[in-house]
Amino acid sequence: MVNQEVKVYGAQESPFSKRVEIALKLKGVEYEYVEEDLLMKSPELLKYNPIHGKVPVFLHNGRTIAESLVILEYIDETWESGISILSKDPHERATSRFWTKLIDDKLLGAVWKFVKSHGKDQDAIVEICEVLNMLENELKDKKFFGGESIGLVDIVANTVALWLDVIQEVIGTEIFKKEMYPELSKWIEEYMNCSIVKDTLPSRAHLLAFWQSRFQSASASK
Amino acid sequence: MVNQEVKVYGAQESPFSKRVEIALKLKGVEYEYVEEDLLMKSPELLKYNPIHGKVPVFLHNGRTIAESLVILEYIDETWESGISILSKDPHERATSRFWTKLIDDKLLGAVWKFVKSHGKDQDAIVEICEVLNMLENELKDKKFFGGESIGLVDIVANTVALWLDVIQEVIGTEIFKKEMYPELSKWIEEYMNCSIVKDTLPSRAHLLAFWQSRFQSASASK
Repeated sequence: MVNQEVKVYGAQESPFSKRVEIALKLKGVEYEYVEEDLLMKSPELLKYNPIHGKVPVFLHNGRTIAESLVILEYIDETWESGISILSKDPHERATSRFWTKLIDDKLLGAVWKFVKSHGKDQDAIVEICEVLNMLENELKDKKFFGGESIGLVDIVANTVALWLDVIQEVIGTEIFKKEMYPELSKWIEEYMNCSIVKDTLPSRAHLLAFWQSRFQSASASK
Repeated sequence: MVNQEVKVYGAQESPFSKRVEIALKLKGVEYEYVEEDLLMKSPELLKYNPIHGKVPVFLHNGRTIAESLVILEYIDETWESGISILSKDPHERATSRFWTKLIDDKLLGAVWKFVKSHGKDQDAIVEICEVLNMLENELKDKKFFGGESIGLVDIVANTVALWLDVIQEVIGTEIFKKEMYPELSKWIEEYMNCSIVKDTLPSRAHLLAFWQSRFQSASASK
């Protein structure tokens, strides 16, 4: 496709917009990137995503799509190039969608409660560990959730690969103990070592500084 | 396909398992149905859906799938017969997925808060009305969310078509005022009049009795 417009409105610190960028790079699709300030959203972002006003927003030839999972499926359906983000087999597709739903609904919901309670919500910690155990089990004997190459679940689980580690350091409560999750730990190493992932995700230092400052201002305003 | 096993574990009162049944009927796929007691789950249900232990569970030739949205996509990808639940166009597919996500994440989350607070959570009411307004807008000039025929969003919005009305009656706080949502009201009539929908959803009287008894026991145990 020639002269097509592919644009991502994202933020360095958003695991959701990073999903979209990783998917586009895995497909070899060139795109224009617009960095949004999460604390001061641009009029464009609010125009393109009036319902949520959140990153990521994806533009393709004048049409917009919001919600990272929706965008990932769109990218996979629109570009045949590069790797398949979802398998062609309906049952494998269903399994991947099941895990991404579990990560977004249950895991990230619990992580959010963990953050808001400053690490004190014990139910949230139990829920996080439950999902981590399930992911640990799912990975058994596999390099990636997608098998031999990165797929939908890997991209969606980037929160586990980087954000969770940073958040638990800022809050000062360790949830992810490497010895309890050997398969997930191996996966994090493999995933974070992929050149596309490494080039796309923010550095740990950057993310740590962002979360420290965010957490300090939240504590100060209490 | 001959001699294939298609089985749904569902409950009369679950809008989620009703989605799956409507999709199968729209595709003309025969299935075996197992009614689950929502208060006393069978060992089969817990075996097939160990992670959530919830209906619906879908079995196809010995393989199981959980989560209604995941099952709906699987059904559409597996059977070409009958209507397409999702359009073939990637952007239309993305739009449908966006709305189903909004219904499941935002609308049903708010309805749940409304129920738990016995109708007292004003934020929940505001959130419900916000989504209803968005759906009202989305329907403009369309018979169904899917256009001329029922599609993914219609099936997922069965909660709006029947459950919301019953819940607000049991709780005694009217949220859905017909005059405020003329497009949605027309849609409810069209949708509920489709023979497949009418034959699949529980009667209003049955659902009302179920919610009344559920609500009374919740109040009694407070």
